[in-house]
Amino acid sequence: MQRYFALAKEKNKLVLSDDDLYHIKTVMRMHENDQIEVVFNKQLYIGKLLTDYQVEIVKTIPTDIDNKQIILLIPLLKETKMDLILQKSAELGVSKIIPVELERSIIKLDSLKAEKRLIRWQKILKEASEQSKRIDIPVITPIKKLTSLTNLDGLKIVCSTNERQNTLKKVLKNNKGYDKIIVLIGPEGGLTDNEESNLVSNGFVKVTLGKLIMRVETVPLFVLSILNYESMVVK
Amino acid sequence: MQRYFALAKEKNKLVLSDDDLYHIKTVMRMHENDQIEVVFNKQLYIGKLLTDYQVEIVKTIPTDIDNKQIILLIPLLKETKMDLILQKSAELGVSKIIPVELERSIIKLDSLKAEKRLIRWQKILKEASEQSKRIDIPVITPIKKLTSLTNLDGLKIVCSTNERQNTLKKVLKNNKGYDKIIVLIGPEGGLTDNEESNLVSNGFVKVTLGKLIMRVETVPLFVLSILNYESMVVK
Repeated sequence: MQRYFALAKEKNKLVLSDDDLYHIKTVMRMHENDQIEVVFNKQLYIGKLLTDYQVEIVKTIPTDIDNKQIILLIPLLKETKMDLILQKSAELGVSKIIPVELERSIIKLDSLKAEKRLIRWQKILKEASEQSKRIDIPVITPIKKLTSLTNLDGLKIVCSTNERQNTLKKVLKNNKGYDKIIVLIGPEGGLTDNEESNLVSNGFVKVTLGKLIMRVETVPLFVLSILNYESMVVK
Repeated sequence: MQRYFALAKEKNKLVLSDDDLYHIKTVMRMHENDQIEVVFNKQLYIGKLLTDYQVEIVKTIPTDIDNKQIILLIPLLKETKMDLILQKSAELGVSKIIPVELERSIIKLDSLKAEKRLIRWQKILKEASEQSKRIDIPVITPIKKLTSLTNLDGLKIVCSTNERQNTLKKVLKNNKGYDKIIVLIGPEGGLTDNEESNLVSNGFVKVTLGKLIMRVETVPLFVLSILNYESMVVK
């Protein structure tokens, strides 16, 4: 069943965006009494289409909520790479993405472009979340400066190409009970020494991801796959 | 330093393809005495460009060889999805890829198209291997029928959407010492019951990858990330 995220809930009705209504009518060609899955406020409902394409709640579906929060801090990259990261991160369970201005990042966006881009990014995350049947859409914040990120709390990790000893695996084994993990991934040219030492003095732990040499857009997918795997329960 | 894979080694010289020579001359604008990394037969060399763009071996570099073999069996997908899987799989350490004809795969290729596609796939794998500084290029075989894959040996896994109990994690924990792992990933519509039972009777173990609902092209990246992570040594 097709899944949509509602904008609001009013008594026993769910309010969808115009884009979603267009999708329902014109792409999916659905009619009165057809049912859809609708998520609002991390709650899943089965909704029924009324004559005027309002959505009436038919049923409330219990869902597991995973309380582990995964926050990714990513560099600004070319559009296709950003799009890939956002789509795949939503599939792989990210909670929040913070795009960060970094010294060696090649991409610079003026504020008008950045605003437009943010709307595009939110759309990609929403669509990927629908397709992956998530009950939430990952949050993406406006672009931040690294120096503004001093008050994040949680298990803070920076993927460093200079680190040789301290593996991601070791850090995860030693911090099994975390409820919030923050992972920063550097740009193509890597982080500067200055950026790394600022991060370390802000409580970030440097880790190596092992021997693979990955393109920068592959790194978040690698890390998210592993975080998901580590939280898999073995019976 | 730029890395290339040589076609042959003749005494103290390495023979590169015309494409690579073009890249060296025209894209990289390298000259006599400039050095490059060249891999031949899983051995890394430092080579020096001669006047006529022949490559003379300057040094032999010792390299770690990882003996774990990872073989991916993947469905035929749309071109952009195939390309993504191949590029990322090379980055994430795959050894061999076997494209498999599956009942619910939407894509069908006639033999002429399949031959052309194979050349394209090999090129993607070679370029990704150069960029990831691998010492080998993953092998990709021509498209095979599932019924022809009866004599593979190793730890054989099929990612199944019907399996609920047996997680990938459990299987990996119980088979730590494997030296060859074979992972089959189904097409967008999933494997048919018939295909699954044929695989099981050929020694494949059904696993679930957990709760995430991923697009099909994300699954190999997820699995390869995990296999790599599981082989990371914690000191």
